[in-house]
This record gives sequence, C-alpha cells and structure tokens, in this order.
Amino acid sequence: MTIDADLMFETALRERADAVEGMLRRILGERILPGEIARPEHLMAAMRHGALNGGKRLRPFLVLESAALFDADGEAAMRVATALECVHCYSLIHDDLPAMDDDDVRRGQPTVHKAFDEATAILAGDGLLTYAFDIVADEATPLPPERRAALVLALARAAGPGGMVGGQALDLDAERNKPDEAGIIRLQAMKTGALIRFACEAGAVIAGAPAGERERLAEFGSAVGLAFQLADDLLDLTADAGTMGKATNKDAAAGKATLVALHGADWARAQLAGLVTQAHALLEPFGERAAMLKAAASFVAARNS
Amino acid sequence: MTIDADLMFETALRERADAVEGMLRRILGERILPGEIARPEHLMAAMRHGALNGGKRLRPFLVLESAALFDADGEAAMRVATALECVHCYSLIHDDLPAMDDDDVRRGQPTVHKAFDEATAILAGDGLLTYAFDIVADEATPLPPERRAALVLALARAAGPGGMVGGQALDLDAERNKPDEAGIIRLQAMKTGALIRFACEAGAVIAGAPAGERERLAEFGSAVGLAFQLADDLLDLTADAGTMGKATNKDAAAGKATLVALHGADWARAQLAGLVTQAHALLEPFGERAAMLKAAASFVAARNS
Repeated sequence: MTIDADLMFETALRERADAVEGMLRRILGERILPGEIARPEHLMAAMRHGALNGGKRLRPFLVLESAALFDADGEAAMRVATALECVHCYSLIHDDLPAMDDDDVRRGQPTVHKAFDEATAILAGDGLLTYAFDIVADEATPLPPERRAALVLALARAAGPGGMVGGQALDLDAERNKPDEAGIIRLQAMKTGALIRFACEAGAVIAGAPAGERERLAEFGSAVGLAFQLADDLLDLTADAGTMGKATNKDAAAGKATLVALHGADWARAQLAGLVTQAHALLEPFGERAAMLKAAASFVAARNS
Repeated sequence: MTIDADLMFETALRERADAVEGMLRRILGERILPGEIARPEHLMAAMRHGALNGGKRLRPFLVLESAALFDADGEAAMRVATALECVHCYSLIHDDLPAMDDDDVRRGQPTVHKAFDEATAILAGDGLLTYAFDIVADEATPLPPERRAALVLALARAAGPGGMVGGQALDLDAERNKPDEAGIIRLQAMKTGALIRFACEAGAVIAGAPAGERERLAEFGSAVGLAFQLADDLLDLTADAGTMGKATNKDAAAGKATLVALHGADWARAQLAGLVTQAHALLEPFGERAAMLKAAASFVAARNS
C-alpha cells in the first residue's frame, strides 16, 4: 500500500471499530428485550469485559466493507458485524479458560475468568454466543427473513463443530498428536479461517447478492483467513510480549505445529505475498469500490500486533 | 390421571424420546454438512456423550405435542424439538463442570468432563449450543423463513443472558447472596422456566398460529416450568441418590434457597395441584386434542425421578 492508502485504511478501521464498540456497549447494557426476564448485572459485566476489550474489530470491518461493496443496508450490516464480534469474543473467553489455553492477560487486561471467576467466564461466553443469534434473527436487523435465516445458518456453521469449535478441538488434540501439514491447514481453516470467511461472505448475503458473488467473497475470506493465521504464527515467532499485550512465543514453547515452524519465516513471507495477490485478484471485478477490502487483506498480511 | 391416560402418556413420551434420540444420533454422526470442513471425532463423541444420555426428552415432547395441537409439519417440529434438546444438553454439560456444579455423574453415567476432559466438555457444550441454531435456521427445517427466524430468535432469547444463562448466573450468585422469594422465583423462571416455556410456545410458532394462541401456549409453558421446578425441589428433599441417578439433597446441603425450603413440602404439594389445574384450564379451548399436553403437566407435577 502507499502511505495514503495505508492512512485511509487505518482511519477507516478505527472508525468502524468505534462504531462496533458503541453498538456492543448499547446492546450489552441494562435494557431488557421483550421475552427477557432480567439481565443479571454480574453476568452482563463479565460479557462487557470480554466484548469491550478495545480489539481491532477486524471481522466486523470485513462484514461492513463487504456489505458496502453491494450497497447493502448499513444498519443490517452493523448488527451482523456486531453479532459476529460477539461470537469471536465468546471464543476468546472460553479459549483463555484454565482448562483451555490458561491465559491470564488479553490486550493488557485480565482475562474474564481472572477479572471475575471461571464459572462466570463460562457463562459470559455462553451468553455472548447465544446473544449473537438473537441479534441476527431479530426483526431489528432490517432484512427479509430469508436473509436473516441464511445468516444465522452461515454463522452457526462457521462457528460450530464443523468450523471454529471443531478447530479448537483439533487444536487441543494437536498438543498430543502433532498434525501433518494437511492437518495444520485444516485446523487453521476451522479455528480462525471459518469466521473470517463468514465475515467476507456475510456482506453478499446481507445484500442478497447472486450466489457467484457470495462465493467470490467467501474465497476472498479464505485467502484473508490463511494470511491472518500465517501472520499470527510469524508474529508469535518474532514479537515480544510488550507489543502483543499477551504471552508470546507460546507456540514454539509448546512445540506447537505451525506452517511457519514447518517451512520457516522466509517461506511464510513469500506465501503471504502470494495470498495478498490472490485476494486482490478476486476483488478485481469490483474495481475501486473494493479498495478498503484490498487494504484489509494487505493489512492482515503485514500486521505487527 | 386415570391409569389408562397415565399409560398412554408414558408410552407416548417414550416413543417421542426414542424418535428424538434417533434424530440426535443421526445429526451428530460423521456426515458433514455443506460449509463444514471436518467433524473432529473426539469432539463429536463428547457431544454425543452429552446428548445421547437416555433423558426423558420432556422439552422435545412439549414441542412435538404443542405443534400437534395445530397440525403443524411433523418434520419441522421434530427438528425444532431436537435443537431445543441440544440447548438443554449443552446447559447440563456446562452446569456439571468443576467450576460450576462439579458433578461427576449424570443419569448414572460419568459427566462429559469426566468421560473426556474439561476442555473437551466446554467445547462439546459450545458445539451443541451453536448447532442448535444451525438446525432451526436450515432450510431442511421445512418452514417459511420468517418462522425459522422467529424460532431462532425465541430460542436464543429463552436460552440467553435474559433467560437460561442469566438464570445460571443468578444461581451462582445465590450461593453468596441468598435471594428472597421474588428472587428465587425469578431465578427459577430463567434457569429452568424459560426453555420449558419456549418448548410449549414453539408449537404455535411452527404452525404459524395466531399471536393469542402462541401466548396461551407460552402461559401454559410457564405453569409447567414452575411445576417442574417445584417438583424438582421436592424431589431433592425426599428422593435418594439411587432413584435420581445423581447426587441428591445437594440443595439443602448447600443451604440453597428454594421455595420448598422456604414454605415446606405441604405448601409445595398444594401449589403443584394449583399449577396443574391452571395449566389444564389454559388448554380447555383445544378440547380433546390437548389430552397429551395436559397429561404432561400432570406428569411433571407428580414425577418421582
């Protein structure tokens, strides 16, 4: 990217993140919805702690920008983006639990089970996951019901046992049985790839775009997901805990199988360049409108935190 | 109930449970769905362990019978019933975790975190919860999309922070701060009541029944939910571990606040009788067709396991 494009992208990412943070704060507030009986303050505080963590909100950004590509309804895109972020944040809360990765710190803050307790962290994750589907299915998401149902289905499938949750299960297992290259690729496509793919695909679904466009965006999402994971593995190798705001070099310490560990950093950088080229090529038919999504792909590959 | 009605109900309950068990077994099998990448066997085995536990399948029964009241599509009702059971089973898996109730045995079998491990149990619960929304939203549930979306929404709201998950959070808190009578009623309406209410309401949604009928069924569900919890608290006081297949008298041992502890067993039995009368009255307009649902209300109040 040129410096200007770089700056524009970073400004846009920050603005979108602020908007998503604002919506998360509103929907995780005290106001109960029809059919809700009460919102226990302790639980809601834990859900807010896990969700309002100053993240980059990359997945919501991808939803919003892929939706903008098709001039989709902005409020609908924002709600789907926020729901997806709820799913992402739930996965982090559960992933950080003592029985899982056992992390005390995330983004420089105590993880939910440290700030509250383990039981509350389990429930806060459950609550965010469940609420994500509420947000998408609700008529307050101004879309025809068939699109709301399609989005629920796609999100559930990306996040479920055949997607993200399955990837986490494979990841647990990888500590006992080191996967081969195909196994690593599958694990990562499920654990981190599936939600990123959904994020890019979602815009086309929100807009009711033709199946071909939806598939194109999903493929773009797969390339971005692969790049995201490669960059993450590279970072884990090279960054220090100060930059990351969390423990680093844990993968190598745990003898964790990654493509970077298998093929080395130079190979990974070449792969990343190829993935960015591929991702950009997929967006060519959209011309200038896709500038932000292209910048996002470049950013993901080059990110240093 | 007369002995004949009793027998008919128990036969019907068992038949419905077998059918639900069969569908759970099928959908938690190896066959992956479009968009799924792989189904890790270890995770699926844990999900099956948590779901195929020989439960009475009361909630699915209520869905199926409330749907039958309106001649709703049988396959649609079966899929919604199965999805609801996935949510119920996920809640049991997470509830049994060491950080929560720390139970080793359920229905005479080791709980999921004992049969597998804690991390796998957390993920198995997450997987069942996520998959429940997949089942409802999927076009394989032969309903117009607006009903699928409405069912996702109602299920998410019943199971979410303003419903079941919130009830579990209140339950945790109740060990520290004993709730008053209103607090106990709220806790129970959320923790166990919300899903039972949804089960009864769902039939009307599946059938696209008018709002008034939906509300009537929901009210019936609320009465059944209250009766269920009262009967459960009574049982905890009187049953032994052999009958229950799980540890009993834990509530009293934990000094847990229940309405039975507050008002005594005689009061509870009188309340139960009143709730059954109320539940039956709500179904009067449906005449003979509601016989099974009425029997279910009587069964819930009188159950001894």
